[in-house]
Amino acid sequence: MIHTLKTVVQQAQITRPLVHAITNYITANDCANMILAAGGAPTMAQDEREVEEITTLSNALVLNLGALHAQQAMLLAGRKANCLGHPVVFDPVAAGASFLRGENSRRLLHEVKMAVIRGNASEIRALAIGTETTLGVEANALDKVTEANLLESAALVQAFSRRTGAVVALTGEIDLVTDGTRTVALYGGCEMMGHITGAGCMLTALTACYCGANPNCPFEAAVAAVGVMDICGEAAYQQVKHAGEGTASFRTRLIDAVSRFAAEDFAGKLRLRLLP
Amino acid sequence: MIHTLKTVVQQAQITRPLVHAITNYITANDCANMILAAGGAPTMAQDEREVEEITTLSNALVLNLGALHAQQAMLLAGRKANCLGHPVVFDPVAAGASFLRGENSRRLLHEVKMAVIRGNASEIRALAIGTETTLGVEANALDKVTEANLLESAALVQAFSRRTGAVVALTGEIDLVTDGTRTVALYGGCEMMGHITGAGCMLTALTACYCGANPNCPFEAAVAAVGVMDICGEAAYQQVKHAGEGTASFRTRLIDAVSRFAAEDFAGKLRLRLLP
Amino acid sequence: MIHTLKTVVQQAQITRPLVHAITNYITANDCANMILAAGGAPTMAQDEREVEEITTLSNALVLNLGALHAQQAMLLAGRKANCLGHPVVFDPVAAGASFLRGENSRRLLHEVKMAVIRGNASEIRALAIGTETTLGVEANALDKVTEANLLESAALVQAFSRRTGAVVALTGEIDLVTDGTRTVALYGGCEMMGHITGAGCMLTALTACYCGANPNCPFEAAVAAVGVMDICGEAAYQQVKHAGEGTASFRTRLIDAVSRFAAEDFAGKLRLRLLP
Repeated sequence: MIHTLKTVVQQAQITRPLVHAITNYITANDCANMILAAGGAPTMAQDEREVEEITTLSNALVLNLGALHAQQAMLLAGRKANCLGHPVVFDPVAAGASFLRGENSRRLLHEVKMAVIRGNASEIRALAIGTETTLGVEANALDKVTEANLLESAALVQAFSRRTGAVVALTGEIDLVTDGTRTVALYGGCEMMGHITGAGCMLTALTACYCGANPNCPFEAAVAAVGVMDICGEAAYQQVKHAGEGTASFRTRLIDAVSRFAAEDFAGKLRLRLLP
Repeated sequence: MIHTLKTVVQQAQITRPLVHAITNYITANDCANMILAAGGAPTMAQDEREVEEITTLSNALVLNLGALHAQQAMLLAGRKANCLGHPVVFDPVAAGASFLRGENSRRLLHEVKMAVIRGNASEIRALAIGTETTLGVEANALDKVTEANLLESAALVQAFSRRTGAVVALTGEIDLVTDGTRTVALYGGCEMMGHITGAGCMLTALTACYCGANPNCPFEAAVAAVGVMDICGEAAYQQVKHAGEGTASFRTRLIDAVSRFAAEDFAGKLRLRLLP
Repeated sequence: MIHTLKTVVQQAQITRPLVHAITNYITANDCANMILAAGGAPTMAQDEREVEEITTLSNALVLNLGALHAQQAMLLAGRKANCLGHPVVFDPVAAGASFLRGENSRRLLHEVKMAVIRGNASEIRALAIGTETTLGVEANALDKVTEANLLESAALVQAFSRRTGAVVALTGEIDLVTDGTRTVALYGGCEMMGHITGAGCMLTALTACYCGANPNCPFEAAVAAVGVMDICGEAAYQQVKHAGEGTASFRTRLIDAVSRFAAEDFAGKLRLRLLP
């Protein structure tokens, strides 16, 4: 597995995939910088009159539900990406927080074939079983994946993956990634990732970057992205703690760490467990 | 007073208030990170079709005039917040710079009961007495609060507070906060706060975070927010000066300082003076 | 030349020009902070109902093609700036990437007299000779200015400058700035500038800041902006390399360096060559 993950990361650094991200304005800058840090190039066109052309030039597409005003652009770009066989990565930001978000999510999932769906526990549950306990963009504590509910949570993401045909990445303290058949749990990151905006959006952007460079391996791309974020989150936290810094420095050091990540860094740092 | 301010800050760190901010795209990322640094959680929904639902889930609402395109969303969210008794914090960004901004401000103040109005000297004067000397988002030098015009300025914010029923926070080198009865002047911060974008917007977001955690104490919440920003602005400046850094590092260190602020830090650092 | 460039930079630090930037949401925060770092003040109004008023208060105007939704606002503000004699700086972001961008560019160039056009090699070529090889916001490798094609590239920007009446700044590893008569090549910056988002947009904003403070010298303003960015890019890279940091720190240190740049720093650091 680690050998494959190394290749996934290196492919992005070598081939510089162009990632078309239709994403929310709050974290768009961070997402663009994250894609660049991983070796890709971002383009963030949202205008309905051009998104199909831009997607055609690109290697992967991000649909971030936070860009609610761009729902039509997402549908156009998503269908075009599907036609061309470009991987589409969906981030159902705060999917359970409003009727509109639920409706837009269902429409996108119905009309666009997603390669990967990446969300926190509340977002994935909202889509998978229709719970609506999301508070804003935060995962509800009750929804979290723990060692106690690990297999039950795995069953949930596996069923959702089989129903949608997408790799599902449910991320948090414990991360689950599945393609419906293979399922892994990843450990890492740090609590401070919940104290900056955009950690989830950046992970989605990173996933799309790796998918763009490895279009036939969405499962491995998603595992690699989650693994890189976990390792870099820990490294950034150690630096911040050592220097007596705070959350804004953590954001900077997190992107720094991704920009300096080498495929060899997986060895000895990746904490991954195959689930039955 | 300091005892109350400590409680205000701690409440935000303990209760993690959800702050719904309808704010401009330029500084939205900074505002989200500032809310998180203070212990809250941000949600930045602007779509008219969902803002009432999002506000219902939240503990406080920011209306930032810079988001001109979202005027209707602000009215919907503001009225809903009023119905639910959630504190609304208004930031009249560049209120005097255009006819449209004046008109939108008047409409918002007429239809939404604000808990706190936070602006610079030119913005508050534009609303309070109809002067229109704002140049962009900068306070006009002629409008500034000085020791010489302190009592006159205090009288102006007090009258504006009584007329609107809102706590008014006029911030700059000298800050004034009043609920119409009690008025304090605060000293601190640094000149470099005028050399980054978003210092005012971030202070407004911080105020809303403290209001959300302390919904019955908008005056104390506003004083705490201004005090924290003054103390953290000074601390960040000392670090930047010592390290030979510049304005971008100052922004990072300012948010860092808020994320590390402990209620005990008020003691010996807060420079506050009660005015008659 | 260096004497004039010093004056250009100092004028911005002394007169604090107000720069009205109609720019894309992805890098707006960085652009605002760059303008502030150089001594100016940003205002980023995009609403058609107020852009003419805001432009009237301002000293210079940025039209950034990335803000596609604000095309009408750009036309209104651009015409007003022309009437008032305010310099307009155009950034044709990804001009060759879609039909819409080509069309919008042509309309803007037809209706608004630009003081400076600042873009990368692919963007300038797309406008100058109608090639459409832009991939997103990145310059296509085939379009790059090299020592081998330097005079040919200079002839292209000179012809484009004479046709539009604008100073043209084509920036990359080698930068070319021309007013149709005088042409200079500048060297500097670093490869890491291509690994953060917004390096180009920030340079455009910096150019507008210097134009606003020196409205009769768009050529010198553009050369100064490119020179400052080259020098600060190198300085930031040295710091990042020395500290073992990455791309996000580079962005911070780049803006820091501009905020600490003194006119005297041109001496011995500016690498500029007059072309025939």
